[in-house]
Amino acid sequence: MRVEKIADFLDGKLCGAGDAEIFAVASLEKAQTNEISFIEKIEKIEKIENIEKISDTINTPQINASCLLVPENFDAPLPFPVIKVKNPKLAFAKIAAVLHPPKNPAPEIHKSAVIAENALIGKDVFVGAFVCVGENSRIGDRTQVRAGAKIGAGVKIGDGCTIHSNVCVEDDCVIGDNVILHAGVCIGADGFGYVRDGERGYVKFPQIGTVIIEDDVEIGVNTCIDKGALGETRIGRGTKIDNLVQIAHNVKIGERVIIAAQTGISGSTVIEDDCIIGGQVGMGDHALVKSGAIIGSQAGVLPGKIVRAGVWWGTPVQPLDEYKRQNARVKGLGRLKEEIKEEIKELKKQMVGLGRTH
Amino acid sequence: MRVEKIADFLDGKLCGAGDAEIFAVASLEKAQTNEISFIEKIEKIEKIENIEKISDTINTPQINASCLLVPENFDAPLPFPVIKVKNPKLAFAKIAAVLHPPKNPAPEIHKSAVIAENALIGKDVFVGAFVCVGENSRIGDRTQVRAGAKIGAGVKIGDGCTIHSNVCVEDDCVIGDNVILHAGVCIGADGFGYVRDGERGYVKFPQIGTVIIEDDVEIGVNTCIDKGALGETRIGRGTKIDNLVQIAHNVKIGERVIIAAQTGISGSTVIEDDCIIGGQVGMGDHALVKSGAIIGSQAGVLPGKIVRAGVWWGTPVQPLDEYKRQNARVKGLGRLKEEIKEEIKELKKQMVGLGRTH
Amino acid sequence: MRVEKIADFLDGKLCGAGDAEIFAVASLEKAQTNEISFIEKIEKIEKIENIEKISDTINTPQINASCLLVPENFDAPLPFPVIKVKNPKLAFAKIAAVLHPPKNPAPEIHKSAVIAENALIGKDVFVGAFVCVGENSRIGDRTQVRAGAKIGAGVKIGDGCTIHSNVCVEDDCVIGDNVILHAGVCIGADGFGYVRDGERGYVKFPQIGTVIIEDDVEIGVNTCIDKGALGETRIGRGTKIDNLVQIAHNVKIGERVIIAAQTGISGSTVIEDDCIIGGQVGMGDHALVKSGAIIGSQAGVLPGKIVRAGVWWGTPVQPLDEYKRQNARVKGLGRLKEEIKEEIKELKKQMVGLGRTH
Repeated sequence: MRVEKIADFLDGKLCGAGDAEIFAVASLEKAQTNEISFIEKIEKIEKIENIEKISDTINTPQINASCLLVPENFDAPLPFPVIKVKNPKLAFAKIAAVLHPPKNPAPEIHKSAVIAENALIGKDVFVGAFVCVGENSRIGDRTQVRAGAKIGAGVKIGDGCTIHSNVCVEDDCVIGDNVILHAGVCIGADGFGYVRDGERGYVKFPQIGTVIIEDDVEIGVNTCIDKGALGETRIGRGTKIDNLVQIAHNVKIGERVIIAAQTGISGSTVIEDDCIIGGQVGMGDHALVKSGAIIGSQAGVLPGKIVRAGVWWGTPVQPLDEYKRQNARVKGLGRLKEEIKEEIKELKKQMVGLGRTH
Repeated sequence: MRVEKIADFLDGKLCGAGDAEIFAVASLEKAQTNEISFIEKIEKIEKIENIEKISDTINTPQINASCLLVPENFDAPLPFPVIKVKNPKLAFAKIAAVLHPPKNPAPEIHKSAVIAENALIGKDVFVGAFVCVGENSRIGDRTQVRAGAKIGAGVKIGDGCTIHSNVCVEDDCVIGDNVILHAGVCIGADGFGYVRDGERGYVKFPQIGTVIIEDDVEIGVNTCIDKGALGETRIGRGTKIDNLVQIAHNVKIGERVIIAAQTGISGSTVIEDDCIIGGQVGMGDHALVKSGAIIGSQAGVLPGKIVRAGVWWGTPVQPLDEYKRQNARVKGLGRLKEEIKEEIKELKKQMVGLGRTH
Repeated sequence: MRVEKIADFLDGKLCGAGDAEIFAVASLEKAQTNEISFIEKIEKIEKIENIEKISDTINTPQINASCLLVPENFDAPLPFPVIKVKNPKLAFAKIAAVLHPPKNPAPEIHKSAVIAENALIGKDVFVGAFVCVGENSRIGDRTQVRAGAKIGAGVKIGDGCTIHSNVCVEDDCVIGDNVILHAGVCIGADGFGYVRDGERGYVKFPQIGTVIIEDDVEIGVNTCIDKGALGETRIGRGTKIDNLVQIAHNVKIGERVIIAAQTGISGSTVIEDDCIIGGQVGMGDHALVKSGAIIGSQAGVLPGKIVRAGVWWGTPVQPLDEYKRQNARVKGLGRLKEEIKEEIKELKKQMVGLGRTH
């Protein structure tokens, strides 16, 4: 793809020649001829100029990219074309998607796959080796179901999805369009609910609901999304979930939510749109995280807690500022103790002096 | 199932007509005609009466269930039959198990399964596609081994079990009756034990033990139960373990223990009967959790620690009351500091006054 | 293997007869005739002597092993041969590896395996049922690829590896010699990186790098190692990683590092050689853990933090001593408050006294 075409595609302003061919994206340090990279923030520019200066001296240029995506206020002269864009990292992601399309195998239904006769398989679908698709299930157009994935009965999977190896989608779950499920993901297992029956132990609470995953969701390796006990568990459109995350029964997650690795969300908790949840966060059941909340890694949200918009951290979760102040106070405890003891000692000494003069 | 038959089955007291047919359970809000629901606690009744009152006004009844399971002291008049029982939630779980039996496929040995010639397969067993069963292994009557599960050599699996897709049971493990292993569970992998050999790095400590899982255990998606290094790892009868839990080598877990998602138990730790362990709890090795202990989510139990009956929280784990008091003190630190400074300032002022009058 | 041969093999000093045959290793308590065990530290000896004394009395010896590996300074007389070695636990691990070699199935390519025509399969390789090996991939000599493992295209796996059931190695990853990947491990999935595009939600940042796993690495069940976004994720030689660990894109882990279960390492973080990381530790992105650091379980390392050699604990991570002092101060807060209030009360009383006498 020629530089001028990339500038067009990204709606950016080309500065320099537009005829170089770009074959790949790369990091600033690693990019070679015919590769494009980006500078995220203006503060990196000085560093680059230095690098350029060094390069001049030693005569081996440090930046070998054939083109850079730069912020609009960038004006350092560079010996290769740059494209000015509003958000270079976003532009880089967009052009990367064009230059590096996912390596999808050609449409094929592998002869070893076990597909129910009444399952509906769309157009241009790839079904890999050792895949199962159960009765009355439907796989949308251009969807990839990689080797070893197990799709239960009554499952609906939309168009353009990628279901990686050894994924398991249990009966009756619904998955939208352009969803990516990474290896080992399990959608729709029984939730974890029991009722104690005295000495006899636990009786399973009914786990007969379902999971609905809306369009454009991506779910990381070995993440678990349990079905609703009686109703549904729902993951909203455009939400991205990392590896090894636990989403319990009846959880509702809104649109464009980010959840980092190893976080666990207990039953019936609601996370509204546009939240960002760090890694290893734990949330009790029936909590409510309001739209726009950002929760730091390893934080703990108590059952039933309402977390409003803003940045939160700690267990139990607190506004970040409060948490930091508290941490500072705890860290300062030793000094505080010394100070107070010193003041009291001084007061006592003065008191003794007063007593004596008296 | 007719309402009067359900009342009989649950040993409850029917108030109202017994002839309605019930086909399904549902939550109170969602239940429709021919469905049964439940009210867990008496405090919910007032809420319902209000709902009923509203319904009268707007002429669309809010509760559409054909029958409710209610506590024995329930006496609000409702326009449909109720069944009074000691524990409505438990009764609901029991009737749900009857109305919604697990959707098990009919007994079948899929032709693609690879089963050792000397493996013993019981009566009415389901073995799905792409399953492996190793030499000298035994699968009990009515057990389900779903697609893609891998059963090693010398494994014993009891009657009435459900082994979900892509489960892995390593050689020589023993699994009792009515055990449920959810997708991606791995039973009997090597424990994590090494001995440092100076500069050369780590030598594997022998991991040649086994895992024994007793009857009525349920284990969640992608949970790992490592085999004993030299002896056994054991999960006691009726214990329920959630998703993504880590149970290390030689751990012994008693009967009727509940372990929520993402908790990790280090090597040789013992958890006695009837404990409840929250999510994301971490336990060091050789700890002992005594019968009846309840440990809150994200708590940390130090190696070798003995945790007695009672409620515990925090890292390192403390009795809940102590932990709460400590948290309150930490939260009050800022105010405490102000108060003390104020008192000292006041004392100084008085002192100056005294000095002056003197 | 005869005791004298074991003493030779371990370069230890045999005390007692060398002709007993040893068939197995076992723990001290469980070892029977023809089994060998070990005593790790000298402090255990007294315990044993007591046991022996008791045994004499009741005439049933408590230690039934036919041989013990003991420290060099051991000199209690025992009624069976002992072998004195520098590090008995290490010696035990080494002899266990000889007496209990891994139970590898004989070389075989299972007829159900789907192997690309241009894949290179080495000598004496085992490929189990329902395995896939993609185009241009290479499997080294004596490597085991167990049932259901999925090896992508362009993957290189070295000699003597064990790839357990249902492992997934994505395209173009490189795995060295003698690597063990336990069941459900996923190597080379997309990292978790997105760029926000205003109201439209998130655009995937390119995830087009790879994973390199060096020789002698062992990786636990269901652990995830994501590929680099643009570069590589690398696990150094001899490093051991436990179950359910998350290693994000572009992480670099050095040689002989130990990482316990459920720990999560965020993008681009570097862990140098010979570190020990406990379980459930969380590390932010771009952190640097210097060689020789030891980080306690459940600790949290902030993004960009540099952790030097030494022992660390807590969130945010602190030197262990500091953390303990801080914990002690927090625990002592209640008492401190009482003490100070008491002192101030006393001062006030004295002040009143002074005022009065005045």
